[in-house]
Amino acid sequence: MDKQYIYADNAATTRVSDSVMNAMMPWFQENFANPSGLYSLATASVKAIRQARADIAKCLGAEPGEVFFTSCGTEADNWAIKSAVELTGRKRIITSKLEHHAVLKTCEYLKAKGCEITYLPCPENGIIEPEDLRKAIGNDVAVVSIMLANNEIGTIQRVSEMAEICHEYGVLIHTDAVQAVGNIPVDFKALGVDMLSLSGHKIHAPKGVGALIVRNGINLPSFIHGGKQEVGKRAGTENVPYIMGLRQAILDATTDIQKRSEYVLSLRERLVDGLLKIEKTRLNGDRNSRLPGNANISFYGIEGESLALLLDMKSICVSSGSACTTGDTEPSHVLKAIGMTDEWAKGALRITLSEDNTIEDVDYIVEMIAEIVEKLRASSTLWKKTAL
Amino acid sequence: MDKQYIYADNAATTRVSDSVMNAMMPWFQENFANPSGLYSLATASVKAIRQARADIAKCLGAEPGEVFFTSCGTEADNWAIKSAVELTGRKRIITSKLEHHAVLKTCEYLKAKGCEITYLPCPENGIIEPEDLRKAIGNDVAVVSIMLANNEIGTIQRVSEMAEICHEYGVLIHTDAVQAVGNIPVDFKALGVDMLSLSGHKIHAPKGVGALIVRNGINLPSFIHGGKQEVGKRAGTENVPYIMGLRQAILDATTDIQKRSEYVLSLRERLVDGLLKIEKTRLNGDRNSRLPGNANISFYGIEGESLALLLDMKSICVSSGSACTTGDTEPSHVLKAIGMTDEWAKGALRITLSEDNTIEDVDYIVEMIAEIVEKLRASSTLWKKTAL
Repeated sequence: MDKQYIYADNAATTRVSDSVMNAMMPWFQENFANPSGLYSLATASVKAIRQARADIAKCLGAEPGEVFFTSCGTEADNWAIKSAVELTGRKRIITSKLEHHAVLKTCEYLKAKGCEITYLPCPENGIIEPEDLRKAIGNDVAVVSIMLANNEIGTIQRVSEMAEICHEYGVLIHTDAVQAVGNIPVDFKALGVDMLSLSGHKIHAPKGVGALIVRNGINLPSFIHGGKQEVGKRAGTENVPYIMGLRQAILDATTDIQKRSEYVLSLRERLVDGLLKIEKTRLNGDRNSRLPGNANISFYGIEGESLALLLDMKSICVSSGSACTTGDTEPSHVLKAIGMTDEWAKGALRITLSEDNTIEDVDYIVEMIAEIVEKLRASSTLWKKTAL
Repeated sequence: MDKQYIYADNAATTRVSDSVMNAMMPWFQENFANPSGLYSLATASVKAIRQARADIAKCLGAEPGEVFFTSCGTEADNWAIKSAVELTGRKRIITSKLEHHAVLKTCEYLKAKGCEITYLPCPENGIIEPEDLRKAIGNDVAVVSIMLANNEIGTIQRVSEMAEICHEYGVLIHTDAVQAVGNIPVDFKALGVDMLSLSGHKIHAPKGVGALIVRNGINLPSFIHGGKQEVGKRAGTENVPYIMGLRQAILDATTDIQKRSEYVLSLRERLVDGLLKIEKTRLNGDRNSRLPGNANISFYGIEGESLALLLDMKSICVSSGSACTTGDTEPSHVLKAIGMTDEWAKGALRITLSEDNTIEDVDYIVEMIAEIVEKLRASSTLWKKTAL
């Protein structure tokens, strides 16, 4: 193998691209001023942030004034949900068990503070039925939070239909689009949601920058109080280099998205076809309404974690669940939510490809997985029991 | 002048140093893995964060497990104060009008939610009397928040004495040490506080990274909920490059602090002596118990903002108040708090030097200020009225 390793865990994080590096570099040592300064050196930073806000808005179908920079997607999720409860004074939140922990743990925190959490049913294909939202909604609901694309199984939710239902009832809707932005076309206005979270490090910007897009007219309370940054909505000196990096990453990701996504999808299909040839395997989540790079496959009778660790020894980086829940001994909450048994859920492996991957990568991954799965099954009590 | 500009606004932000750049670079494109990954590439990130935590703790007299990384000093302040109220269930906060807006606005937010805020008296020298804390404290207090060094006038508070008083009463104490760390010796344990906020971008790390140090044994509730990062206390994928940059910045800043601070102090004294020769000027805040690089001087009869703008035309970067309140038409809340009249407060200029400045810089600044102050006074109604 030419490469040092094959990186196929792009849903966990991505390598910072050369173009993003170039976009960030002038803002560390050259134009380093605090944007709040009065002098010319500071004006450059102010203009840069304004440009980033305008360009990101344009790429995602939003208005510049709707884009608020945050330190990550998790902060954006926390802000959206906690502040929606504060803004409306209502005490019920509708969400699903498929959500990222940034949403689920925030909801659990609010539950401890007296909120009621309604979880929508999750069908086996991982795609929530908008009509189930209609059954659950009411004017006592502060906010509905449903992610646009899932971080584990990649399934894409029918968020725009849900937004319509929310608006019929005058209820705010938030979507965590951290996995979606840059991988599928995302248009804030067309989607119709009130708030949308995104993150830089899933699309070749660094870890530590994100944004919350908030529809004009919603006076969302601040979550981090202090100075007047982000029109007083998010205090703290602006991270100018990363904001410029996020701008570049979104520009890059939304340019030629169709072509790029077709390429990644072709790799994914080749990967899935190859892996499903192994006996007693299954693809988790709908195959079609799914992020192009995502393959989440269960291998019956083995532990996904062991498989991932052995793949590391073959220089392949993949994960057994979401990065944010590594170390959990429990099977994935997402796989449980779509009704999988523990046996199948524990055998799950998440492989997430990007445009940096090649056909050779895919073929090597398939070959190595087939080899390791066979070995692991040879010593698996569960597998032997099933074979009997 | 050789340089493009003279930067003397180091309390607003600092230029990222070469050593910090070098410390960050490997973590963007080479070792870019999500620290939550299972594979070897991720192990490097995990080890790096562990090393950063240990080294930062050692430099600041804390235990590694007491250091929690945040996205900025403002986030750390918000977390400390809001979560102290949540943890204790108490509804009173003691602070002062000298605090940074990150503390003041957080307190105002909590006031709107039913908390009572007690502001300690601020003497003219800008140094709060610990005995005034004793008079105000009681076991109904959730937290006392007093900054270690002020961001506008640089005065250093007697925080360790206040910590003793707090502990007599079983009350938590937090200090915003954003301006202090790296400029004066800071020892978390010796200081005796329960929580300490710091920020990277005041000490040559980039904007967008900070930390909250929390004393072992205090089970501070999480402020940002989600994944298990920072032992579940601060969710969100770790910003590995900036964490490594913060580590380097703190290592650099705490090495030879005595020597560096003596040099900066000598520049500051030369600057202050030079400026006080201009008639009707005064140094704001105590001259001795003060950050070495800080000079905050009022020029009667003129507007500090106009002075700063004209200095920019002479390629000098300084500010008229704190960076976070730029654009305010009101005079500085800190200068008002120490009892200055509007006339004197409006004429304030903050010059904050670092080890990158030279004697030549200082002499040029003094020369230019003298020239511009004379011009501004020539057209100042207030000045003419006084002269009559």
